[in-house]
Amino acid sequence: MILPHQRTYKERALKQVNPAAILLLETMERKKSNLAVSVDVTKTKDFLAIIDVVGPFVCLIKTHIDILEDFDLNVIHQLQDLSKKHDFVIFEDRKFADIGNTVALQYSSGVHKIASWSHITNAHPVPGPSVITGLSSAGLPLGRGLLLLAEMSTKGTLTTGVYTEEAVRMARARRDFVIGFIAQHRMEGVGLAPGEKADEDEDFLILTPGVGLEAKGDSMGQQYRTPKEVILDSGCDVMIVGRGIYGTDPSLTDTIAARAKKYMEEGWEAYCQRVLCP
Amino acid sequence: MILPHQRTYKERALKQVNPAAILLLETMERKKSNLAVSVDVTKTKDFLAIIDVVGPFVCLIKTHIDILEDFDLNVIHQLQDLSKKHDFVIFEDRKFADIGNTVALQYSSGVHKIASWSHITNAHPVPGPSVITGLSSAGLPLGRGLLLLAEMSTKGTLTTGVYTEEAVRMARARRDFVIGFIAQHRMEGVGLAPGEKADEDEDFLILTPGVGLEAKGDSMGQQYRTPKEVILDSGCDVMIVGRGIYGTDPSLTDTIAARAKKYMEEGWEAYCQRVLCP
Repeated sequence: MILPHQRTYKERALKQVNPAAILLLETMERKKSNLAVSVDVTKTKDFLAIIDVVGPFVCLIKTHIDILEDFDLNVIHQLQDLSKKHDFVIFEDRKFADIGNTVALQYSSGVHKIASWSHITNAHPVPGPSVITGLSSAGLPLGRGLLLLAEMSTKGTLTTGVYTEEAVRMARARRDFVIGFIAQHRMEGVGLAPGEKADEDEDFLILTPGVGLEAKGDSMGQQYRTPKEVILDSGCDVMIVGRGIYGTDPSLTDTIAARAKKYMEEGWEAYCQRVLCP
Repeated sequence: MILPHQRTYKERALKQVNPAAILLLETMERKKSNLAVSVDVTKTKDFLAIIDVVGPFVCLIKTHIDILEDFDLNVIHQLQDLSKKHDFVIFEDRKFADIGNTVALQYSSGVHKIASWSHITNAHPVPGPSVITGLSSAGLPLGRGLLLLAEMSTKGTLTTGVYTEEAVRMARARRDFVIGFIAQHRMEGVGLAPGEKADEDEDFLILTPGVGLEAKGDSMGQQYRTPKEVILDSGCDVMIVGRGIYGTDPSLTDTIAARAKKYMEEGWEAYCQRVLCP
């Protein structure tokens, strides 16, 4: 049996039903990039500058819009312009984790209006299926897609065992909206009862943070793996890199572009080995 | 052995170390209220109006600041004025659930600057202890307190068994900052190894959502218990009520005040039975 990650991104795009999943896979194929950059800065000027520099090398930009001190809706318009200019998907990493009614409001309302501009967002499965119900009520009519956090890469995380299995079961029940997972590994077979089989066309995308060219960690409990470990060895689909690319000085545009290019090339090389690119 | 919830809020305030825990317990004693109102509306005008009406009856106002469509920092100033006028504690129900570095930024920065005004906030334990480390780096210098979500009241929640035990263990390791739990029950003894004893002065506050005068549920998976079940039978400290008090029309101030008063009285009566008030 051929597993989803042994097929090309292009083939997989043809079998997806969710518009955000299709958009992401087609973008990856078109740009030959499985690199996502997580832009975790607090000033709009730096935020937009970094995105403009790494834009050519990424399939996806991951945001924490709620850390921008000088946020207004104009930032979103500029982000959307950059998304068109450089052809990337937008993923607001909000990690929704409340009851259905609350997440529906947090997703669609407030000053950030995430559902109106972010192609993809994510949620912790911890509240149970109602978190998906709530988010889908706002996101599905807009063609958005949801990732569930099936695993985290921090020390002492509780996303293990039954927790991860339940996340996958919740996703299987809502394949119209849940397009994949934030995880460290592929999830095929996870959470299936003995003798139970997943649908033949089940194909969840795996987006993986905690990626660095050299494996190491930080003082806040984050741990790192290399692009080859993530894409080739673990079969993940998108690798998410943050400070490893843009460092601490957004004005060093040549350095940032060179790093993004290197990650992109390493990630694509690992993918090509995985699917046996011609 | 006398358990924490068998003592009065006043006695318990004397043994706490965290300023936010002391403030909350003293406020409860002073106002004879263990009622918190969760104000989940999207317009600032409604938000402030409801708080002004329920203010006299509550020890705490719970906010979802990120659902306010017309938020600006002026809202915070008005919220703080109401907090002084009516003598209540502020709890932003943000449910932080990311890695340490990110939650530190989400808590202190962005347009909402939660750490600067919210006495108490909360976090899911799912990322592991680093979520507490990150939040405490911003909150502890300001005298803030953190609640961990040890249990949720939604159908199919994953906050069970080992998950809840780990939450309590994380809290025990950081009693300077973690002042209690969002939970349905008391947590004494939870997560202790065989033969292990908790510190004698361990006293976590239990704040409990999902409270209604009549038990029922909503279509998004929320489930309800009565004040007596929550405060007397389960020994929880603060009961959190939302739409059950302010309904759908914020202009019905008399109705809202009457409901808040009724909840306050039922909650305090249950507390008095618990601690055998003279």
